[in-house]
Parts: sequence; structure tokens; C-alpha cells
Amino acid sequence: MLSAGFKESGSEGLKREKALVEVCRKHGMRLVGPNCLGLISSYTPMNASFAPVTPHKGNIAFLSQSGALITSVLDWSIREGVGFSHVVSLGNCADLNETDFIEALSLDPRTKVIAAYIEGVGEGKRFIKVAEESSKRKPILTIKSGISEAGAKAVSSHTGSLAGSKMAYKAVFGRTGIIQAESIEELFDLARAFSTQPTPKGRNLAVVTNAGGPGIIATDACSKHGLNLAWLSPKTINLLRESLPEESSWVNPIDVLGDAPPDRYRVAMDIALKDEGVNSLLVICSPQAVTKPKEIAEEVVKAKERVKEKPVVCSFMGGEAVSGAVRLLSEAGVPNYPFPERAVRALSRLSKYGEEKLKVKRGFVASYKVDKGGVREVLERAKRENRVNLLVVEAFQILAAYGLKIARSILAQSKAQAVEAARRIGYPVAMKVVSPQIMHKTDVGGVKLNLNSDEEVEEAFDQEFATPPPTCPRLG
Amino acid sequence: MLSAGFKESGSEGLKREKALVEVCRKHGMRLVGPNCLGLISSYTPMNASFAPVTPHKGNIAFLSQSGALITSVLDWSIREGVGFSHVVSLGNCADLNETDFIEALSLDPRTKVIAAYIEGVGEGKRFIKVAEESSKRKPILTIKSGISEAGAKAVSSHTGSLAGSKMAYKAVFGRTGIIQAESIEELFDLARAFSTQPTPKGRNLAVVTNAGGPGIIATDACSKHGLNLAWLSPKTINLLRESLPEESSWVNPIDVLGDAPPDRYRVAMDIALKDEGVNSLLVICSPQAVTKPKEIAEEVVKAKERVKEKPVVCSFMGGEAVSGAVRLLSEAGVPNYPFPERAVRALSRLSKYGEEKLKVKRGFVASYKVDKGGVREVLERAKRENRVNLLVVEAFQILAAYGLKIARSILAQSKAQAVEAARRIGYPVAMKVVSPQIMHKTDVGGVKLNLNSDEEVEEAFDQEFATPPPTCPRLG
Repeated sequence: MLSAGFKESGSEGLKREKALVEVCRKHGMRLVGPNCLGLISSYTPMNASFAPVTPHKGNIAFLSQSGALITSVLDWSIREGVGFSHVVSLGNCADLNETDFIEALSLDPRTKVIAAYIEGVGEGKRFIKVAEESSKRKPILTIKSGISEAGAKAVSSHTGSLAGSKMAYKAVFGRTGIIQAESIEELFDLARAFSTQPTPKGRNLAVVTNAGGPGIIATDACSKHGLNLAWLSPKTINLLRESLPEESSWVNPIDVLGDAPPDRYRVAMDIALKDEGVNSLLVICSPQAVTKPKEIAEEVVKAKERVKEKPVVCSFMGGEAVSGAVRLLSEAGVPNYPFPERAVRALSRLSKYGEEKLKVKRGFVASYKVDKGGVREVLERAKRENRVNLLVVEAFQILAAYGLKIARSILAQSKAQAVEAARRIGYPVAMKVVSPQIMHKTDVGGVKLNLNSDEEVEEAFDQEFATPPPTCPRLG
Repeated sequence: MLSAGFKESGSEGLKREKALVEVCRKHGMRLVGPNCLGLISSYTPMNASFAPVTPHKGNIAFLSQSGALITSVLDWSIREGVGFSHVVSLGNCADLNETDFIEALSLDPRTKVIAAYIEGVGEGKRFIKVAEESSKRKPILTIKSGISEAGAKAVSSHTGSLAGSKMAYKAVFGRTGIIQAESIEELFDLARAFSTQPTPKGRNLAVVTNAGGPGIIATDACSKHGLNLAWLSPKTINLLRESLPEESSWVNPIDVLGDAPPDRYRVAMDIALKDEGVNSLLVICSPQAVTKPKEIAEEVVKAKERVKEKPVVCSFMGGEAVSGAVRLLSEAGVPNYPFPERAVRALSRLSKYGEEKLKVKRGFVASYKVDKGGVREVLERAKRENRVNLLVVEAFQILAAYGLKIARSILAQSKAQAVEAARRIGYPVAMKVVSPQIMHKTDVGGVKLNLNSDEEVEEAFDQEFATPPPTCPRLG
């Protein structure tokens, strides 16, 4: 259902949305949307959307609670040569929601990675359960928007859903194995690496570059994102020394020099990939005077085919001069990033994903039993009495309703009640004045500590509580 | 001097480099490089480089200690429509270095922003002085590479310079007003905003968008990067309500809806830019079914011309569908970013730059007088004696050479000397055994505290120090 004018537009729209779902249920139909762009399935093929372009076939599934983001991403993906298995615009999620699609896509053999733009999650508990199971099958990458206060407000007027707290989502994502990206750009940087590359066996990266500066930039990025620049074995270094020109750098980053022909790249890549201490490879190419980017890209693709179990990513840097190479890499399933930093960041997340998978046993998400009725009662009474502050006893009731252990406390409204309460609690006791007019009890002598007998309680009541200070019109 | 084979290649090369500089000096010539790509001046015009492309004219000056980075950036800039005033490949900086060029470019009327890729700085003190003066004239943006330990090592084999500590550079950049980018991508994201847009008067951003999701993404980015989503005035909101369709969002982000024609964008932008509480504007456009990106871009350019004093940046998101619009924006000096997060980040840095400039009085960079000769003497003696640890007295000498106040301490090698030393220091004194073989003095009873007289010093010397424990072959 593509049309807008439902939950996102207010209470009238919500009524319409409920009626719509009822009609669907009655006739055994499932519903995507409303207020969405529709859905695309590349392999059926089916384009049940009003997106102006149809994406290339690929193995990334993309779910989005923003239809416009889909049109942008599809248009971008055509140029970048990125392909999708399914694209789903979720809209208001009146019936089918993000959880349903994550579950279905985790079982879809065409889909290698699920990438999701999420503003809010509907069925929290079910989402956690499904996400935990699904992310064992394949990586789920998300960008959660509405994480700032202002962003959350904007979400509620967009799809009418609650954005929820940043911390809560972070905890849920962390524990269910969902990988959170920091930006749309990172979401797809990761999706491309995760959908095309094997998981590396460790964090040790080799860099082959035809330029010193970008090699250093990659080195810094390793340190920033928690990858190691691999220590090459003496055998590898010797092989490189024998095979490369004298001025090359044989330590990592391996600098094949600015005049490097495709052959020299091939030799360096093959030697680096054979080193057991190297878990993944980044190939950097800057278009210098005699560089042949497209032929170098062909060598990258071949090297990648020879060593299938190690991830290879590229940073062919530039514009027109590298565009042919970038297209070739894309089509062959080797992600290219315009700058080395983004390549390193993607590989780093892929390495960490591998480590997390090895750990297997994930934490569980705790749920707490809360006496919601009890809390509501206290708050409604305060509301009825037009109070903006809760009495101490009321605050304690709320804490207790949330399962927190608190000191026992009884409200006494006479001297006799006070003695009785003190006996029930057991000596020693503390006495505090309770009044909605008094916020700072000690200022008015309204706190007595360490009372050890009936007499002391009676005395305290007489002396302090029976003669209210001027600011204290009523004693509790 | 383009040729390599100088300082970066070892001691023989260094000799050659020195000889080269001498020749230049003798004949009154200044030298760029060696080991560089050369330089380009767009307005002369002069291309004294072996870069395969000549950049568009523009007002960004780009200095780089990596020539290959220049070839990549130039190639990229052609496609993105970004223009340069000067491009300088610094190479080994045998004669002219980064400081010389920063000074010259800060006085060049064609240059509005200096963007620099820096691996290391040569003349530290002069750099600080020049940078402080130059950054008062125009923004200096840098990416400092080699900030990780591994990166610093790679720098030394690249241009033969020392990368220096990350903290030291951060402090120098901060105090001289240099703006540090985190990545190459950010360096040019900032350069484009700083070179085309006025400095905003505050941090309040208005967002006009044809899509809810990207609006929320921009909102989150504001919170992350320290911009405010501007509170629109009641007048503005009323005007928007009167001018836009009912389903639009009149609060910020202003959502002109997915079917927004160029006219509707124009109305929304004009109203937002007139609000005094709005300091800058981000225009987001996603290519939906009926969107006309190029015509919308034309309206952005016109709106920008009507309100010159407020920065306007764009995020037209997508590929082919927005490429015409992006080119048009670029040529008109309105930077476009492929995703809203990067647009917000650039505007945020521009706002902070404005605030820093208002503060005017910058901190000064302290310099310390160090007795380097004294330090060298101590270290050389330890080296001669093949010691890996310093004696306590030696460590104290070094601390004193750095100007740190330390307790007075005299080395005594006999009982008489100990008494004399104690008298010179003044009672009470402490006595500690000094021996290169003893690291943990208290373990062998080698520390006596609070000695108040000649007698106590003599006693301590006899009892403890005259009978060396087995691990203590020599007493100092």
C-alpha cells in the first residue's frame, strides 16, 4: 500500500489504518506499508514500487522506513554498480514490519547481507528474538535514526513511531549481534564489504600501494579503527625484495612505486596474500603519470580469485582516470572506496564481525517485571491533587514497583500511629516530615535520626513535628 | 625539482640533496622539492608539474607532502567541479617548505582557503609563528598523517621526515588556529564549504527537504556535530503554513514533501533564510518519482544569491538522477554532499571556525629552555658504561635539565662525604643506596628516612650501607 494519509497524519489516519488492516486480515492478505514506496524483488523479478529505477541484481537486501532514502540509494547504486536482492520500503508497518522482513530475508538464499534503515522498532521483544536468530545466519547492518532528542521528535512526525532511546537500541543491537553503522555512507560501505568478501581470520592487514602518502593514511586508519598493519614474514620480505625494484618498500605498506605497471602489482599482491600472517589485503592505486588503473584492477580481480578465503578491498583514488577500474572492480565483487580510510573502516568492521561470531554465546537481554498499575496509581493521585512533586513515600512506592529494594517506610499522621509504625519497622528508626509544601526537610528541622524507643519517637513528634514551622502548614 | 633519489633514499641521497641546495643558494634560486610532483598555478597559468590533468580555476590552495595524493585529488576535482588557485607538491622540502607556502598563500588574493596534507613540519617555531599569523587571514585546513605509531614509521621512510607526536601537533594546530580534518574526504568537504560560503553568525541550521528520513538523519547529525536545529519564529511557521501544502512539516526540518516542485522549494528556502534565528541552510533533495533535481538546484543557486550572508549547502542524494544538479551547484559555488551527515559536519566546522575567530585572542605556544648538553652528557655516560638504567642522581639531573624542581641530592661515596653532603643539604635528610645493580632499594634496606644529625647519618651508613647485601656489589 503506497498511499500516505494514515497513521503518520494523526488520529483520523490511524483509524483509517486500523480499518485497512482489518480488511486485509479478513481476506487473509498481508500488507506492506501504507505510506511507503513499495517493494522490489530482483530475482523474481518484481518491481511493486514507484521507484523510478530498478536496481542491479545482487546479494544485499535493503529495508528502509524511509522511501525517499530508497530512491536515493537505488539511483546511487546504479552508478556504483551495487546490486540488491530485495528492496523493501516499510512505511507505517501497519501489518508486516521490520521484524517480519528480517526473519524472511535471513532465510533467503539470494541475500547475503541485510542492510536496514530503522527509525523505530515495533514489537520490541519479538524483534530481539528474531534479530538474535537471524544475525546468526547472516550479518544485519543498520543505521538507526532519530537517536538525538530532536531526531526522535522528527521521527514521530514522520512515520508516527517512537524512536526510543539511543542507549536502549545500542544495547539491543549489541546483544542481538546487529551491526550499527554511524552514517548512511558507512551502512553501504559495510554492506559492500560484507556482501562480497569472506570474513577474515584476524585483524592483520597488508597494504599494496603505488604511493607513500595514501599508504600512511591507511596506516593511520588501521590504528584508528583497530586493525593491525600485518608484520610480514622474513620469507615474504625476501620474496618482495627479490621481485620489486630497489626503491620499493618491502615492509607493510608495500610501496610498489608511482611507476608500477599491473605486473608489479600482481607480484606484490600474490606474495602478500600467501603470507600466513596476512588476513586481508587493501590495494591502493593513485592515477599517476604512467599508471594503468583498469589493467591494475584486472590483476586485483585475478589475485582475488586465486586466494578466495582472504578479503580484498580497494581504494582506487580519483575521478575519471579510475572510473573504468572502479566499475570493473564493482562488477567483479571487489568493493572500491574513494579513500583508504573508508576501506580500512569497512575491513575493520568485517574483522570484528568475525571475532564476534567466534565468541558465539551472546548475552541475553534482560526483561524486568514492573508493577505498572501501582506506578500509575501514584502518578494519577499526584495529578488529581495538582502536585508537581511526589511525596517521599510515593517516590518509594514507585521505586518498589520497579523492583528496587528500599528501606521500609510507613506514613504516620498522629503520635500513636508513629509509635505503632516504629514498632512494626523495628528500632532504631528515622522520622521525616512529609508535606508537599516542604522540599528541604532538614531546613525546617523535619528529620530525626536514630530514634531508639517509643519515648524518643513520642518526644520527637512533640518537639519537632507538632509545632510546624511557618513554612509548614500541614504535617504528614 | 621533480626527481627522487634524495633524502628519502638514505645518507647518500641526503648528501646529494645538500649539494643541490648549495648550488641553488649560490645562484639565488629557490627550490621546490626534490622528490615531488611540482607545482601548478591556475591563474598565471603555469603547470610546472607532471600531473596528467590541469585543475579548474578556483580559490582553494592545496599543499601536499604526497605527490600521488595530488594526482588523485586533481582527477577527483575535475569530476566534482572543484577548482584550485595553486597546487604545490612539497616533496622533501630541501629549501622551500610548508611554512613558506602557507605564508605566501595567506597573502595571495586568489586563495580563500589553504588545504594541506602534512606528514611532518620542519621548522617548528617558525611554523607556529607563521601559522598563527596566516590563519588570522584565512582558514588553514590540514590533514596530518603519520599520527599513529605505525604511520609515523611509514612517514620516515616516505619523505625522510619525523612525524612527531599526535598530541604535539594537535596542540600546535589548536593554538595557531589551524583546523584539523580527520580524513582526506573531510579535508575537501571542509575546503569546499570554507572556500565558497560565508561564516555563519551562529549554529542554528534550517533544513529544507523533500523526504522525512534524510531530514531525520540531518537532525541526528546536528546533534552529533554540535549544530542546533534552528527554532523557527512563529512568523516563519505561519508563513510556511500559508505557503506549503497541508501535509508539509512547518517545523524544522521543513518537509516540502516528495512531490515538491522547484517552486515549493523556493518558497520554503526564502522563508527559512529570512528568519533571523536561522544562521545557515541545508537543502536536501532525493530523486523521487516527480522530482526535478536540476530545476531545484537552480532555485537553490538563486536563493543563495538573494541571501549572500548566510551559508547554504546541499545534499542532493543519488547517482545519475542528480548528477546534473550536482554539477550546476558546484559551478555556482554551492557545495553538494552525497549524504546529509557530511553536509552537517562541514557546516558545523564552519560555525565553530566563526566562533573561534570571534574569540580572537589565541593561546600562545610555550617554549621551554632545556639544558640539552647536560642531558646528552648523562645519557652518553650511561651508554659508555653499557647501562640500560639510569642512576637516581642521573635521572634527577635530567629532570633538572628540563627545568623541573627536584629535591636536592648529592652523591656520597664515603661516610665523611655523606655527613658533609647532609650538612650542605640541611637536616633532616634521606639516604638512598645508589647502584646500577639495585632497582628496588627498600628490598635490600637501602633507604633511610628522616635522619636528623651527623650521628644518625654515620650510623645509617655503617649499619646499612657498609654491609652490602648479596645483590649489592658496589655502593654509591
